[in-house]
Amino acid sequence: MTQLSTEKKMSCWLGDYNDTSSLLDAMCRQSIPWLEGEGKENDIIISSRIRLARNLKGFKYRSQATPKSFVSILKTVLDAVGQVSEFYGYVSLNLNTCTKSEKNFLLERRLISPGFAADTIPRGVVIAPGEKVSLMINEEDHIRIQSMAPSLNLNNAWEVIRTIDNKLSGILDYSFSEQFGYLTACPTNVGTGLRASVFVHLPALTIAGKIKQIFEEMGPSEVAIRGFYGEGSRVQGDIYQVSNQLTLGRVEKNIIKRMHLVAQNLVEKEREERENASVEHRAQIEDRVVRARAIVKAAKLIQSTELLQLLSDLRLGSSLELIDPVDYRLFNFLIITTQPAHLQQIFRKQMNSTERDRIRADYVRSQLPI
Amino acid sequence: MTQLSTEKKMSCWLGDYNDTSSLLDAMCRQSIPWLEGEGKENDIIISSRIRLARNLKGFKYRSQATPKSFVSILKTVLDAVGQVSEFYGYVSLNLNTCTKSEKNFLLERRLISPGFAADTIPRGVVIAPGEKVSLMINEEDHIRIQSMAPSLNLNNAWEVIRTIDNKLSGILDYSFSEQFGYLTACPTNVGTGLRASVFVHLPALTIAGKIKQIFEEMGPSEVAIRGFYGEGSRVQGDIYQVSNQLTLGRVEKNIIKRMHLVAQNLVEKEREERENASVEHRAQIEDRVVRARAIVKAAKLIQSTELLQLLSDLRLGSSLELIDPVDYRLFNFLIITTQPAHLQQIFRKQMNSTERDRIRADYVRSQLPI
Repeated sequence: MTQLSTEKKMSCWLGDYNDTSSLLDAMCRQSIPWLEGEGKENDIIISSRIRLARNLKGFKYRSQATPKSFVSILKTVLDAVGQVSEFYGYVSLNLNTCTKSEKNFLLERRLISPGFAADTIPRGVVIAPGEKVSLMINEEDHIRIQSMAPSLNLNNAWEVIRTIDNKLSGILDYSFSEQFGYLTACPTNVGTGLRASVFVHLPALTIAGKIKQIFEEMGPSEVAIRGFYGEGSRVQGDIYQVSNQLTLGRVEKNIIKRMHLVAQNLVEKEREERENASVEHRAQIEDRVVRARAIVKAAKLIQSTELLQLLSDLRLGSSLELIDPVDYRLFNFLIITTQPAHLQQIFRKQMNSTERDRIRADYVRSQLPI
Repeated sequence: MTQLSTEKKMSCWLGDYNDTSSLLDAMCRQSIPWLEGEGKENDIIISSRIRLARNLKGFKYRSQATPKSFVSILKTVLDAVGQVSEFYGYVSLNLNTCTKSEKNFLLERRLISPGFAADTIPRGVVIAPGEKVSLMINEEDHIRIQSMAPSLNLNNAWEVIRTIDNKLSGILDYSFSEQFGYLTACPTNVGTGLRASVFVHLPALTIAGKIKQIFEEMGPSEVAIRGFYGEGSRVQGDIYQVSNQLTLGRVEKNIIKRMHLVAQNLVEKEREERENASVEHRAQIEDRVVRARAIVKAAKLIQSTELLQLLSDLRLGSSLELIDPVDYRLFNFLIITTQPAHLQQIFRKQMNSTERDRIRADYVRSQLPI
């Protein structure tokens, strides 16, 4: 990979694809491996994620950096990425050459963050084949590496990201302090720079109104709760991103172990609630499930936010056998592909919101065997 | 009627009924004539209402009155009512002997106001057979007489109430000023003391977001907009109570004529919107109608507020022939009978909200031929 000119990679390195739109088209037709979990926690844990925050010695942090230094960072990181075999076959996108729809597509795909999409500085995203590993350059930190794994597989995600991080650290000069560990733009990431997250589907606990108390008991200083699309995104479709708050003074393995236990504990609580819901909550669950099925079958228009809730209700209904069972992977897939930019990419046209709502209603009806 | 002791009437005069509960039972089985409009505006105008505010000379206004004077007013007015042939066969209820459920029933039936239900002073309601005429004693004013008529029939309601008012004025000594007209507790009612209202169902204009502008154009100082249950109640099920603001310096006939024109104008605008909705609003209308049908058919639980919206959507769907036509009178009837206190009276049991929501879903499904 090293023979590629950095200039070319910076303006978008698309590999075998003609242009960004062709790449996104291909992504629409591919499966999303990190959503394809099998195994016993698959009904509740959608996926696991590890991300590392890294910065380069000799370059200013984001708040003090100049456009020129952003470009230097981009060049430096892209050159390093080209030397890491785990990225072989990667594509990279310069965000400033992407359209709004393309940025939204990447956001819906969870390859970039909302802040990164909205930014205007020179910045890029690197996506390894299969989308299990990706890397943002010039987000809050110079480098944000992400490793995704299906269902409850934090260890697997950690092994992958650790290998890549080790290789990159052999090429790049990371900002590192013997006393504190990895230095980051925001003090909350200093130390390991590691965030271990699980995406958990907790509809029964949500209906029962027990979420707040459960998360309070976990200790808000220890565990952070966010929506599916990360910081600043609200919880939709009863899917919570649960991750560690503390990164300093901890060993990576321990953070991951702790989050694994948190996830298992949530699975247990959600199962308990599904099995032993009170008469009142049981009635609410049944009502939601039959309504969701009726609405998906009948509606002419469905907004994306509403659909996330309908999919959540049906997913729960499937788990409780209130409707004919549906493969969880289909729900996971639809969570992503029914979002606005994905719909436009799948149907290859720009649409206004009413058109999208109509196409979305037809599309989800054609996909879901209910 | 004059031979009845006032004491008995004050503690509740129930006519042929054994107790309040038997009365309400009978009311549940009777039709509600003012909701049974026929004729050309029936799809949009649900009913018409005239109310008069009157006070008695020699008695203090509400804010300065003592419990003793409230009792005197009650006695005086009940005696007068017994002498008016239009009230023949009436019942009267002392609100302080009614249970919360009974008061809610009367409120849902539009026989008393929210403020009157919540009050604690000696006060009563007189209901003429058929519920087209009723009278609150010791509401904001000493007397509030109400005349209801189905569909757009303000003149009819006016003729009825005028006759009663004339007769009462021959028995009672009204507070009246040559300069201002009838004197009332709140200055906004001084003059004629008349409020002429129409209850209009405006779903298409609501979906199109045109309601605010239309009412602004009518002149907010001239026309007041409220919910179905009057002052302080919010608009539900796209049903607006539209009435005159001004009562002073106007002749009754002119107020009524003006409100009749306002109602006709609203009918015209709503029809225009139903026929010529934009592609986007047409799509929204169709979506709402098919969803409402699917939800009513499937739901295990339906809350009363949601049901008002579902009935509104189906009423519109029936009018536009998006579903098999349903008699408007059935929708009007269900608007009242699916409210919490009515459900409890119909099914003769106190229920918690989840039980009511379940019974309501079953009940509406059994009633609506969709």
